Amino acid sequence: MSTTYRVLGTRPVRHDGADKVTGRAIYGGDFQMAGLLHGFILRSPHAHARIKRIDTSKAEAYPGVKAVVTAADFPDAAEKMVDFGEGDTPLSYVRGNVLASGKVLYRGHAVAGVAAINAHVAEEAAQLIEIEYEPLPCVLNAPDGMKPGAPILHESLRTKELGEMGSEPSNCAEHFRHVMGDSAAGFAQADVIIEREFNTATVHQGYIEPHNATALWNTDGRILIWCSTQGSFVVRDATACVLDIPVSRVKVTPLEIGGGFGGKIPVYLEPVAALLSKKSGRPVKIIMTRKDVFEATGPTPGSYMKVKIGAKKDGTITAAQAFLAFEAGAYPGAMVGPAGMTVFAAYGIANQTIDGYDVVVNKPSTAAYRAPGAPNAAFATESVMDELADKLGIDPIDLRLKNAAKEGTRRADGPKFKRIGCIEVLEAMKNSEHYKSPLGGPNRGRGVAIGFWFNVGLPSACTISVNADGTANLVEGSTDIGGTRTSIAMQAAEVLGIPVDRVQPSVVDTDSVGFTAVTGGSRVTFATGMAAYEAAQDVIRQMRERAAKLWEVDASEVKAEHGVFSQNGHSMTFAELAAKVGETGGPVVGRATVNPRGVGGSFAGAIADVEVDPETGKTTIVRFTSVQDAGKAIHPAYVEGQMQGGSVQGIGWALNEEYYMRPDGTMMNSSLLDYRMPTSLDLPMIETIIVEVPNPGHPFGVRGVGEANIVPPTPAIANAIRGAIGVRMNRLPMNPPAIMEAIWSKS
Amino acid sequence: MSTTYRVLGTRPVRHDGADKVTGRAIYGGDFQMAGLLHGFILRSPHAHARIKRIDTSKAEAYPGVKAVVTAADFPDAAEKMVDFGEGDTPLSYVRGNVLASGKVLYRGHAVAGVAAINAHVAEEAAQLIEIEYEPLPCVLNAPDGMKPGAPILHESLRTKELGEMGSEPSNCAEHFRHVMGDSAAGFAQADVIIEREFNTATVHQGYIEPHNATALWNTDGRILIWCSTQGSFVVRDATACVLDIPVSRVKVTPLEIGGGFGGKIPVYLEPVAALLSKKSGRPVKIIMTRKDVFEATGPTPGSYMKVKIGAKKDGTITAAQAFLAFEAGAYPGAMVGPAGMTVFAAYGIANQTIDGYDVVVNKPSTAAYRAPGAPNAAFATESVMDELADKLGIDPIDLRLKNAAKEGTRRADGPKFKRIGCIEVLEAMKNSEHYKSPLGGPNRGRGVAIGFWFNVGLPSACTISVNADGTANLVEGSTDIGGTRTSIAMQAAEVLGIPVDRVQPSVVDTDSVGFTAVTGGSRVTFATGMAAYEAAQDVIRQMRERAAKLWEVDASEVKAEHGVFSQNGHSMTFAELAAKVGETGGPVVGRATVNPRGVGGSFAGAIADVEVDPETGKTTIVRFTSVQDAGKAIHPAYVEGQMQGGSVQGIGWALNEEYYMRPDGTMMNSSLLDYRMPTSLDLPMIETIIVEVPNPGHPFGVRGVGEANIVPPTPAIANAIRGAIGVRMNRLPMNPPAIMEAIWSKS
Repeated sequence: MSTTYRVLGTRPVRHDGADKVTGRAIYGGDFQMAGLLHGFILRSPHAHARIKRIDTSKAEAYPGVKAVVTAADFPDAAEKMVDFGEGDTPLSYVRGNVLASGKVLYRGHAVAGVAAINAHVAEEAAQLIEIEYEPLPCVLNAPDGMKPGAPILHESLRTKELGEMGSEPSNCAEHFRHVMGDSAAGFAQADVIIEREFNTATVHQGYIEPHNATALWNTDGRILIWCSTQGSFVVRDATACVLDIPVSRVKVTPLEIGGGFGGKIPVYLEPVAALLSKKSGRPVKIIMTRKDVFEATGPTPGSYMKVKIGAKKDGTITAAQAFLAFEAGAYPGAMVGPAGMTVFAAYGIANQTIDGYDVVVNKPSTAAYRAPGAPNAAFATESVMDELADKLGIDPIDLRLKNAAKEGTRRADGPKFKRIGCIEVLEAMKNSEHYKSPLGGPNRGRGVAIGFWFNVGLPSACTISVNADGTANLVEGSTDIGGTRTSIAMQAAEVLGIPVDRVQPSVVDTDSVGFTAVTGGSRVTFATGMAAYEAAQDVIRQMRERAAKLWEVDASEVKAEHGVFSQNGHSMTFAELAAKVGETGGPVVGRATVNPRGVGGSFAGAIADVEVDPETGKTTIVRFTSVQDAGKAIHPAYVEGQMQGGSVQGIGWALNEEYYMRPDGTMMNSSLLDYRMPTSLDLPMIETIIVEVPNPGHPFGVRGVGEANIVPPTPAIANAIRGAIGVRMNRLPMNPPAIMEAIWSKS
Repeated sequence: MSTTYRVLGTRPVRHDGADKVTGRAIYGGDFQMAGLLHGFILRSPHAHARIKRIDTSKAEAYPGVKAVVTAADFPDAAEKMVDFGEGDTPLSYVRGNVLASGKVLYRGHAVAGVAAINAHVAEEAAQLIEIEYEPLPCVLNAPDGMKPGAPILHESLRTKELGEMGSEPSNCAEHFRHVMGDSAAGFAQADVIIEREFNTATVHQGYIEPHNATALWNTDGRILIWCSTQGSFVVRDATACVLDIPVSRVKVTPLEIGGGFGGKIPVYLEPVAALLSKKSGRPVKIIMTRKDVFEATGPTPGSYMKVKIGAKKDGTITAAQAFLAFEAGAYPGAMVGPAGMTVFAAYGIANQTIDGYDVVVNKPSTAAYRAPGAPNAAFATESVMDELADKLGIDPIDLRLKNAAKEGTRRADGPKFKRIGCIEVLEAMKNSEHYKSPLGGPNRGRGVAIGFWFNVGLPSACTISVNADGTANLVEGSTDIGGTRTSIAMQAAEVLGIPVDRVQPSVVDTDSVGFTAVTGGSRVTFATGMAAYEAAQDVIRQMRERAAKLWEVDASEVKAEHGVFSQNGHSMTFAELAAKVGETGGPVVGRATVNPRGVGGSFAGAIADVEVDPETGKTTIVRFTSVQDAGKAIHPAYVEGQMQGGSVQGIGWALNEEYYMRPDGTMMNSSLLDYRMPTSLDLPMIETIIVEVPNPGHPFGVRGVGEANIVPPTPAIANAIRGAIGVRMNRLPMNPPAIMEAIWSKS
């Protein structure tokens, strides 16, 4: 492959652009079919309660109601461990979160589903379902959940304590520890040691489109589902598992998705819609309200963290220690794991100890949210690093550069880095016009931070068919959230040697493409792109054979370069040869499947300038630069879009967003108005600097850019606030009351 | 491949059965989308007229009308030859049939299209389009069309006379001649010579579902079409060609199809719907009425034929001669070609001369109809053969057996037969219980006949994805008319070694599968089945590699038989291995494309017992047996269904069906009530005998069974009527008036 790319690195119009801007694109809520019923989910008004009795008879008798279901409608199934893209979990937990059984564990927990001739009738009928609850005390954060005597959510849950299963009921599902070197000895060598505690709030991904699902349990025993999801195969497999039928009995057609950020990986509505359809014999559509989305879908964990770092006078870090206690929500979660993997990943530190605790609390079960766990952890580490730089009188970027992870650096959780771009990102930050510019005003401060996300591989499949007019159709299974139709098509186009507007990508249903894992983990442009690369190579191989047949030479003699096939005087363009494939043995279709091992992690940095109003505590982002190693930026505009999006979400975490809850577990701000995500009016233009340190594990060097960019903003802003008003914030969000409190407590 | 099949030859439930019987299946007419407009086609009230002026202004101004189009809306495009599955034809003819330009050539010819907020408004507005016609005399059958001084349809049309282009305007598009040996010398050797003239009526395929199309000319320049068609890629390519855009700018999603029989290959509505959509900016749906279907879509040609056969006393045929003049309808046609290829194909005859004439007349442009041309030709040949047997005092089956085509027999049009089942079919007829049974009543007669159809190959593509639960998803591009989802899935299942209900077939849109030619020519179970066979082999090859990886052996050592992979003590079922493919390199997807050369023609025979009421001339089919060589009957119930369907259509041709036309070209019976196809109340159970002479050109020996079965019924019934009432019928249909006339003219 030539390294002079013709397609990669350009910024073509996205294939789905016209449909998105004209409103033609079909999202889950738009889906219609004949005989459609509308569903409503009845949810728990208690954060923690025992269900004593459910009587659905009045709802069933309500005119217009066609079916009512509860957890009792799940078929019997033996308990087993299942994994739908977020780690191993018992089937009963997945089912329990879909429809509560025995107990409700959070306010908003689904208890029953009703299908009726319209959504209003379904909602009215749901109010007639009689449920006798025995309210129980609730626990709402990890430290409280770990206390002896805390209300226990799952009587059967035991702590997996450093691999050993405990004997007592507990809210702590797991305690893991990563150790490298000797932390005590390391700290003994330090000239300066800083140890701080941090708390971060529960925040939601805040995608614009609420969850939705339409299901038809067909008379042939197959379940057809149309929905908005990050992984059509996850919905297929999870629904099949929850309903105890083979995966091939479920067909999922993914419709357009209005944002996911990790939160549209779990199934919530699909199995309920399917059960309602089975009972009613008709298709059933359920759409969540915004309140449902906040109260009953997976936010990111709130967390309590303690981080301690020691360094010599020259800035060399000698030891680091972290205590991470993460809220899992109602069921054991997976998010403290990556926090443990990333908390010190940006640095080569010989002596490390990392303790992670996964604690169930009476909040919705957490889900992935853009580099899950990493922003929490980085808030702690990068705040301590800033304080350390301060203490040592070293430029904060220089301190990071001195300790930066590089090829060969080992993480405390095991893996050793291959070629990474940590140093290159730090250098780009340091050399940026932004970092060199003056702050330009009073009450202003500048902060920097760096963050890491490891990215994932996982299986993907692609097929590519050649059309007689010299174009190609690409079939993929990755639902397109951020423009991946185009970033994948570009990789195919580069190999085929044709412009990307001659490659037509289609995201198809689970019956029509090979298994493809979730759109998440920054994997799609990397892994599905690799599948497209391989499928395109398969096309080129076949087309060389066709050219060889036409020219009566051996295929090995036929060269293919930039869309021109040639051999010794013979020459044909891709389009010319495409017009002749019919007569040389039929159509040309290439296919490939991958489960790539060469995942390349991505580092991102943030530079934030803030101005804090000392009267009100309001923080304004004056200037913000996001720097990220893309490996290879396939479509730079989308890379920049990801960097800007991750930065904005990080700014939201930093300044505003939180689940504001009453002690009884009621969320008080479950609307977008009250939850207050940053809008364009709150923000400057987010500047971006793309760094390209090719990933050796991908043919074009792609790393994946969806996540690392959300990691550094919160500490960068905290560090900037410190510069502006001289106080170090150790709690998210850093909203005006929190800042005023910090100012007052300093003075 | 073992010849002990586990799936082939069984009769599983069809994959689409539940949807078809519950009404869930979505046909073109069911299709809905937001903002849909409804179209109406204004059609010519004249069979032949010059269009002097079209004024659409009043229609455009009519409230609720969103667009009006005429042929003037076609973009300019250079004349060229195009082929959409029915042979080469000039683009201007295809366009001219979609929307008339300059002249109308048949009553029902489309002149303008209107799109409006509903179908009624569109129809009302269409009546406001002012068209000034100059009516011209019309010509309605081939012999009249060939007469000097006949009204000329196309001023530019010249006869291609034995390959030479003529200089005078003519209605005869082509005269071809196939010659083998010396017919004059052959007839000189004959002891008996019979020469007879025959006429057959124009008949329609009579599918239940009328033509329909929905098109959206999207703002990104792509045209999206949803329709009922025998070939989604034909619609794609033809629409692109008519509208002069690249094929990849059109995406066709084929919906379920309610019958086609060849008549749903051409495009009629799609380009008009697309133009209306372009003008209105909204999707447009058009559905034909039954009257439109009869008056404006392609029936099979009416024909005039003269056939002469000479034989020795022992039955050896010494020479044969045929004159075939077929109505093309309004534009030059392709149906006399196959008539010339099949007219004497059942016999080895050393001396043959076959003249074919393709004659344009003022009727709708003909389309393919189940073995197009062959039933006409066989009506002539097989009637003469019966008379010959009569004259020679030889059993009609024995006479045919004596001259039957076999491996090595050459047809007058060139090809030499490979292994065929003509003799086996005749022997099965002779040995049948039916043929040995007594007639059992007065006014009864028994007739036999045999017929041939060559079948076609053409390109097909398939992909197969393996699911973790040991099932497989099969993606194909062949629209399923007669159960081919299942007959294709069965071939994949046989190779994969799993039950067919574990293979889920999907017929997808043109963006999502490799180019696949029409469902026609009896090709789908043969060619797409072969693609499925090859794709399944590709899966098995990969799964052997995966097993080899797990067992750490060489893939060549791994055996795969009947869904079990094994090597030296290791053994895994398909399902067990399928569950592990993720960990051995990702999903498994197989793909194949074919353009098969080894097409195997099919012979079919019919035995008909009739009873004719001498008072009324009404013929009742008392007993009917269809015999056909399937090569290998993949799904015997569907093979029998094809044989029964072809027989019933042949009975319709024989006894009832015709375009009953006034001299001015108006069809007088353009409703299903008046057209009078046979219903189940008119018919006995059609008995079937499947013969299996494997086709050496297909891995399972498949030939394709969709067509040959319609060829012998008409002469078998004519011959039976001769037995019943002693008169030979030489005209189709042989309805009561025709029979009474024959009785009266004899007496």
